[in-house]
Amino acid sequence: MIVKISPRGSLDQLSQLEVDRLKQNAKSELYQLYRNCSLAVLASGLKSDNAQGLFNRFSDFNINVLRRERGIKIELTNPPEEAFVDGEIIAGIQEHLFAVLRDIVYINDKYDNLKHINLTNASHITNVVFDILRNARSMPMLDPNIVVCWGGHSINQIEYQYTREVGYELGLRQLDICTGCGPGAMEGPMKGAAIGHAKQRVNLARYIGLTEPSIIAAEPPNQIVNELVILPDIEKRLEAFVRLGHGIIIFPGGAGTAEELLYLLGILLNKDNQDIPFPLVLTGPKESEEYFLRIDEFVGATLGEEAQSKYQIVIDDPVKVARIQKQAMEQIKTFRRENGDSYQYQWSLKIEPEFQLPFEPTHEVMSNLDLYFQPNKAELAANLRKAFSGIVAGNVKMDTIKAIEAKGPFEIKGDPELMRLMDDLLGAFVSQQRMKLPGSEYVPCYKVIK
Amino acid sequence: MIVKISPRGSLDQLSQLEVDRLKQNAKSELYQLYRNCSLAVLASGLKSDNAQGLFNRFSDFNINVLRRERGIKIELTNPPEEAFVDGEIIAGIQEHLFAVLRDIVYINDKYDNLKHINLTNASHITNVVFDILRNARSMPMLDPNIVVCWGGHSINQIEYQYTREVGYELGLRQLDICTGCGPGAMEGPMKGAAIGHAKQRVNLARYIGLTEPSIIAAEPPNQIVNELVILPDIEKRLEAFVRLGHGIIIFPGGAGTAEELLYLLGILLNKDNQDIPFPLVLTGPKESEEYFLRIDEFVGATLGEEAQSKYQIVIDDPVKVARIQKQAMEQIKTFRRENGDSYQYQWSLKIEPEFQLPFEPTHEVMSNLDLYFQPNKAELAANLRKAFSGIVAGNVKMDTIKAIEAKGPFEIKGDPELMRLMDDLLGAFVSQQRMKLPGSEYVPCYKVIK
Amino acid sequence: MIVKISPRGSLDQLSQLEVDRLKQNAKSELYQLYRNCSLAVLASGLKSDNAQGLFNRFSDFNINVLRRERGIKIELTNPPEEAFVDGEIIAGIQEHLFAVLRDIVYINDKYDNLKHINLTNASHITNVVFDILRNARSMPMLDPNIVVCWGGHSINQIEYQYTREVGYELGLRQLDICTGCGPGAMEGPMKGAAIGHAKQRVNLARYIGLTEPSIIAAEPPNQIVNELVILPDIEKRLEAFVRLGHGIIIFPGGAGTAEELLYLLGILLNKDNQDIPFPLVLTGPKESEEYFLRIDEFVGATLGEEAQSKYQIVIDDPVKVARIQKQAMEQIKTFRRENGDSYQYQWSLKIEPEFQLPFEPTHEVMSNLDLYFQPNKAELAANLRKAFSGIVAGNVKMDTIKAIEAKGPFEIKGDPELMRLMDDLLGAFVSQQRMKLPGSEYVPCYKVIK
Amino acid sequence: MIVKISPRGSLDQLSQLEVDRLKQNAKSELYQLYRNCSLAVLASGLKSDNAQGLFNRFSDFNINVLRRERGIKIELTNPPEEAFVDGEIIAGIQEHLFAVLRDIVYINDKYDNLKHINLTNASHITNVVFDILRNARSMPMLDPNIVVCWGGHSINQIEYQYTREVGYELGLRQLDICTGCGPGAMEGPMKGAAIGHAKQRVNLARYIGLTEPSIIAAEPPNQIVNELVILPDIEKRLEAFVRLGHGIIIFPGGAGTAEELLYLLGILLNKDNQDIPFPLVLTGPKESEEYFLRIDEFVGATLGEEAQSKYQIVIDDPVKVARIQKQAMEQIKTFRRENGDSYQYQWSLKIEPEFQLPFEPTHEVMSNLDLYFQPNKAELAANLRKAFSGIVAGNVKMDTIKAIEAKGPFEIKGDPELMRLMDDLLGAFVSQQRMKLPGSEYVPCYKVIK
Repeated sequence: MIVKISPRGSLDQLSQLEVDRLKQNAKSELYQLYRNCSLAVLASGLKSDNAQGLFNRFSDFNINVLRRERGIKIELTNPPEEAFVDGEIIAGIQEHLFAVLRDIVYINDKYDNLKHINLTNASHITNVVFDILRNARSMPMLDPNIVVCWGGHSINQIEYQYTREVGYELGLRQLDICTGCGPGAMEGPMKGAAIGHAKQRVNLARYIGLTEPSIIAAEPPNQIVNELVILPDIEKRLEAFVRLGHGIIIFPGGAGTAEELLYLLGILLNKDNQDIPFPLVLTGPKESEEYFLRIDEFVGATLGEEAQSKYQIVIDDPVKVARIQKQAMEQIKTFRRENGDSYQYQWSLKIEPEFQLPFEPTHEVMSNLDLYFQPNKAELAANLRKAFSGIVAGNVKMDTIKAIEAKGPFEIKGDPELMRLMDDLLGAFVSQQRMKLPGSEYVPCYKVIK
Repeated sequence: MIVKISPRGSLDQLSQLEVDRLKQNAKSELYQLYRNCSLAVLASGLKSDNAQGLFNRFSDFNINVLRRERGIKIELTNPPEEAFVDGEIIAGIQEHLFAVLRDIVYINDKYDNLKHINLTNASHITNVVFDILRNARSMPMLDPNIVVCWGGHSINQIEYQYTREVGYELGLRQLDICTGCGPGAMEGPMKGAAIGHAKQRVNLARYIGLTEPSIIAAEPPNQIVNELVILPDIEKRLEAFVRLGHGIIIFPGGAGTAEELLYLLGILLNKDNQDIPFPLVLTGPKESEEYFLRIDEFVGATLGEEAQSKYQIVIDDPVKVARIQKQAMEQIKTFRRENGDSYQYQWSLKIEPEFQLPFEPTHEVMSNLDLYFQPNKAELAANLRKAFSGIVAGNVKMDTIKAIEAKGPFEIKGDPELMRLMDDLLGAFVSQQRMKLPGSEYVPCYKVIK
Repeated sequence: MIVKISPRGSLDQLSQLEVDRLKQNAKSELYQLYRNCSLAVLASGLKSDNAQGLFNRFSDFNINVLRRERGIKIELTNPPEEAFVDGEIIAGIQEHLFAVLRDIVYINDKYDNLKHINLTNASHITNVVFDILRNARSMPMLDPNIVVCWGGHSINQIEYQYTREVGYELGLRQLDICTGCGPGAMEGPMKGAAIGHAKQRVNLARYIGLTEPSIIAAEPPNQIVNELVILPDIEKRLEAFVRLGHGIIIFPGGAGTAEELLYLLGILLNKDNQDIPFPLVLTGPKESEEYFLRIDEFVGATLGEEAQSKYQIVIDDPVKVARIQKQAMEQIKTFRRENGDSYQYQWSLKIEPEFQLPFEPTHEVMSNLDLYFQPNKAELAANLRKAFSGIVAGNVKMDTIKAIEAKGPFEIKGDPELMRLMDDLLGAFVSQQRMKLPGSEYVPCYKVIK
Repeated sequence: MIVKISPRGSLDQLSQLEVDRLKQNAKSELYQLYRNCSLAVLASGLKSDNAQGLFNRFSDFNINVLRRERGIKIELTNPPEEAFVDGEIIAGIQEHLFAVLRDIVYINDKYDNLKHINLTNASHITNVVFDILRNARSMPMLDPNIVVCWGGHSINQIEYQYTREVGYELGLRQLDICTGCGPGAMEGPMKGAAIGHAKQRVNLARYIGLTEPSIIAAEPPNQIVNELVILPDIEKRLEAFVRLGHGIIIFPGGAGTAEELLYLLGILLNKDNQDIPFPLVLTGPKESEEYFLRIDEFVGATLGEEAQSKYQIVIDDPVKVARIQKQAMEQIKTFRRENGDSYQYQWSLKIEPEFQLPFEPTHEVMSNLDLYFQPNKAELAANLRKAFSGIVAGNVKMDTIKAIEAKGPFEIKGDPELMRLMDDLLGAFVSQQRMKLPGSEYVPCYKVIK
């Protein structure tokens, strides 16, 4: 089956050179990257977090960019049927296909190679992230109103319903939603907000999805996302979240959610950032209270009270969650105006290189992480973040999964007490089925050496 | 508490004369009508189908129209808090307030009196309905795509979820939704469609709510409705449904839903209408199959096979329901183009005066309905429709409720076999809790004399 | 030649009743009115002020309204070729055709008969004018910025160029233009403003044309007019000018311009209006200075110094003219906000019945005008206005022209000194060729009895 | 005087790096370039073609880019007063200021240096031109409708009026206008088209101005231009004209116009381009007929009949000129669709490197041009084009003017007969005052050695 897709949204004209570079070619790394990201987008209706399974199932899928009298067309060979309604591609997926094309062409053209942007200068990295977001037109001249929602892609029905209700209250307060794409806690708030926005007649509501090539296949963007941006790697994606977003809500989740929380606490613990208003709420339904108590304990035991003071835990109260975020927006506006910082991109947030430089979790690196208690809490947060980042990679990224199949689980070592705390937390994630979508049995990709 | 509301949507300028006529005045019928409709709109978040309770609870509510340098403002005294989010009126409610104002001013100004438009000429009635819809700007130049959803305001959770799924599939197919306002089967399809429309990037999706002054308080418009129109009486509202809508879906419901089905069958059985394409689907989840079998039996036993041939019953298959509607749209387009009929308003549908003239259900009228089997099925449908219409009035309309409190239930008489069929059907509605919102006990407003 | 025209702008749906009333019918007064106004609009490119000539030349022109699947179409038989470019109707004319239809249908439907709205209640008249303007959507929620430009349709090249320059400066200051339609001083400011608006990127600039059935054929709307409104008679048109407009500029003109100036002075001399800000500028190029001196003398000699204080004369300084208007807008805004009057329609301006009631200039009426000096200057202005109004009618309105052909010129009598002043002024208009388009010789329709 | 200007149009966010690079710095070539282009835009109302005079007069002008909470602001010190109306910057100029910023930042960021893009690969050059136009969003998805108007900035009043009339007819036919910026024949068609577009209700009419840094000060964009693009050099600007435009009209002009005609003929004479539809009309009022006869003679005598067959000469017939262009658009659409070429950018037009590589007219280069008759007419056209290009530079570009002041006029040598033809043509341009704005005396920058 071959279908031709017309442009929608981002991009409609490519130069001859750009088209040539994307030509179907089994050996071209760029083409493979482009093909795989596009396939992930097309498969977004499939409800699976198994990227390898997806690639195997659609091994005969191909994609081709054609130049036509009205700009370009994308030619798809054997795409997933779920992307179509009665033979017509779903407009949201069509938009995402062109967002993928836009970001891959842009990054490749400007920075030579999306997979190997190898920047070490902190200011340069921050400028690249800005550049990609601007090229995606993700910085319209609006007042601060973006709430980032983090949380697991694998959550239960009660938690999912709760994320919808929080989204609904956010939407009623005309706040926009940004998530990491994917199902579960990344989808619920958007669906809820869509209803709230409809009631408030918000015509141009923004549902921003930030992803990266190694995660997109495991957590494809749901189709409500109307601004999809593909950042080159996990660290630039995290930086995009905290510079673009104005407030953050964390719902229950697994290792990925822990990684995100640790990343953010590590930054907020930085002395340079201590006065920056950044509303952070951990929330879930009554049934999830225990989950947050465990997280809070872990943070208290490792990063201490100051870290705990950076967030509020709100149980079973969507209105309160939404009000906290809404009220903070005015404060953020004042702060940025007084400090001459942009409403759209928080340049003044200080991010240390250890949070910016790509972390590649090999077996060797993972077993050598510096996991000991220490007075510099921001640094400890950075190291803990890396540990969880490696586990996420071992769960969902294809290359890492293969390495683990070959060499066995990662070994995580360090201070025994710290190891006990981590093992308990991870064990809780596993037993609560937060590591993989229900139905599949979770085989840990790590071993905590106590 | 006094708040001033700025215009949104329909109307922003009134003449001095128009403002004067709406001045707060306990004796003015027009003012009372305006006040009550406005209160109903403001109370839409309250989840109640008890109009009298509403009016008692907000007896100190007042409304006032003010002329200002930027057009008009509406001043509210003691409005329901549920209409506000953090002190700001919800935009959807704000729009509805001005839709009420628009329709009441227009009808009153042009036809002297909304409550007593007393027209007997069929063509004139049809022109008035057109006029009101046009003034509400409810006839944009679009291709046929309006699906009317009928069904109960009091349905169970499984049925409600099903109406959402059907709405979602309709939205994915870019169909617009029209209902009679209110919760339940009138809200579910709109919420579902909102998600489908979002995925398809339909920016100007239409969620049309058609209501009338005597029903609006019992079934206030949910706030997703973005085109609210208040017709003068129940018959003009029904005519608006069938001339504006292109296809109809009937979900489970009570006496009101039965009234609507009988109204439509009575029209479709008219010989003049036999070639007009009008897709009619009765649908519900597996759990509601029994319900539709009962309805189908009743129709078969009373109106016969031809009437049964006018609809399809689809159980538990939202995709199929949506496809039937979508496919019919092309056929409707062709038919109207060939017959020179408008895409926006189906002039060519023949409606007999017995379906157009307002039916006032008094005790006397109700006990004298001609409820006997007869060969003219359209006429039988008209009479059955009246019987159910009376029961709806006895359930939710304040004046009728008071009459029944005074004189006891309506007595419904006629052919014994027909009475048995009716009694069975009504009994099923009662036992399935379709007559009132759950929680309240239903006291029948009728007695079938067998 | 028969062409079918699709709707553009105002109106796209008509009811069956409305279409029936407009059916082509030689005896129907409404149809004749509709046909003639439509023909005038179609002939707008012809450069003639001879209505009778137009009707003779296009005696085989017919117009017909058809209902179609996408609303209505207008069918034209033998329309003027000048309305088309390479066989396609000019969009501006297409819009005007539907504006004519809109106003005629509306006024006829709501007030029974456009030609005979016979209202005597001052407040009612003011509400009708409002009603017609609102139905034409001529009152968007904007801040005060409408400058009415009055002046002759027959002006010389230097004067025309000057009106363009004034229009350009108004456009650069983002002011909108309202005129009485037609060529000359009614067209120049719009063309100039179009360039000024383009430089200021004013996308929704308004070029409002107010006309009436008896004048439209003699002064058809130029196609830049993007809001055309047809008022029922000359007095309602004048009232529309002064309630809708925020400031007024008077360029050189003939009897019509004198009528307009006297109308406005009569109102501004009303004690109730003495505090209302209403910027009035008389302006022209250096070559026209004499013209304004004569007008000013006439006003001084008849209405006195107070009347002279109501306007400024600015010679050869477009920037100053535009600045006076621009600066007054802020003052008007403040005044209306403080007095609770609308920015869109100046309700608070007091207009006496003698300026509102239609004046029918018969020979008898014209010879009995009360043209004597008197202390009530507003009343004298009203009477003088009538004298000039009659002369305008005698120049351009078909019925009056015929009456004069039959009975000879109007006789104008009164105080000898006043008669001398009038005769001088009128004589100057004639000798300056301000009564008719150049090329045609002017035969006076009046005789001043001294 | 210091004013701060908010963004309008193109660009509203800059990264820290980008702002840093543009910092005011007397030694920074980039800053000087940015300052001078911005000054040219601000001075567009001044009516002068003397760039040096401009820079001298505004030697204390400075510009600065600031980052603010709502994106960037531009700070101007001592800008020309003509850019402001009553203290507010004209919106068109405001847009142009940000267009300059956009193009300079983009080209500098992507190609390192605007002044020294030193590309020798033909395909790469074509891609760069595309890239710049796309970044400027100058390729919306429209059907072919862009008419490029070339001609002198110094034309007489009759010719100017004629360019307006042609523009008016183009606008009536809904064609968009592209010129090289500046007054005269570059402004007239836009002003005329603005009126035509207004009558046709074309809301998004495009007035495209293509310029380059060395010409912008001598021919600043008039403010009707609503898409200003700054190409890096004259050759890329010419390439932009012929790939972006769909048809071309040449009005009377001087050496620059001759250069443009020769450039285009050189390309159209290329065998690869012989089937490409490209409507080219040379036109002027009756008074300019002689001018075109001279040009036609020159082309006939040098490039031959085939070259003459590439254009039509139309005298005093704006309607015919517009019809030729309009009718060709359909043909162009068909041709591109059949050949798979873009409607927005004519990739298939073959342009030889000699027309693409920047030509730097030094005294040495100018005296060594290969100006001999030869069978390869395209090559002869290329060489003649260079001769005229050098003369244009000597007339208006500051660096070249200085070189000529130092070393005397260029010497142009070659075949005696060819020299005679050139000398005659140039002499005619001089005597007709087409080399400089009237008022200034023209001192030739060249000497033809016969």
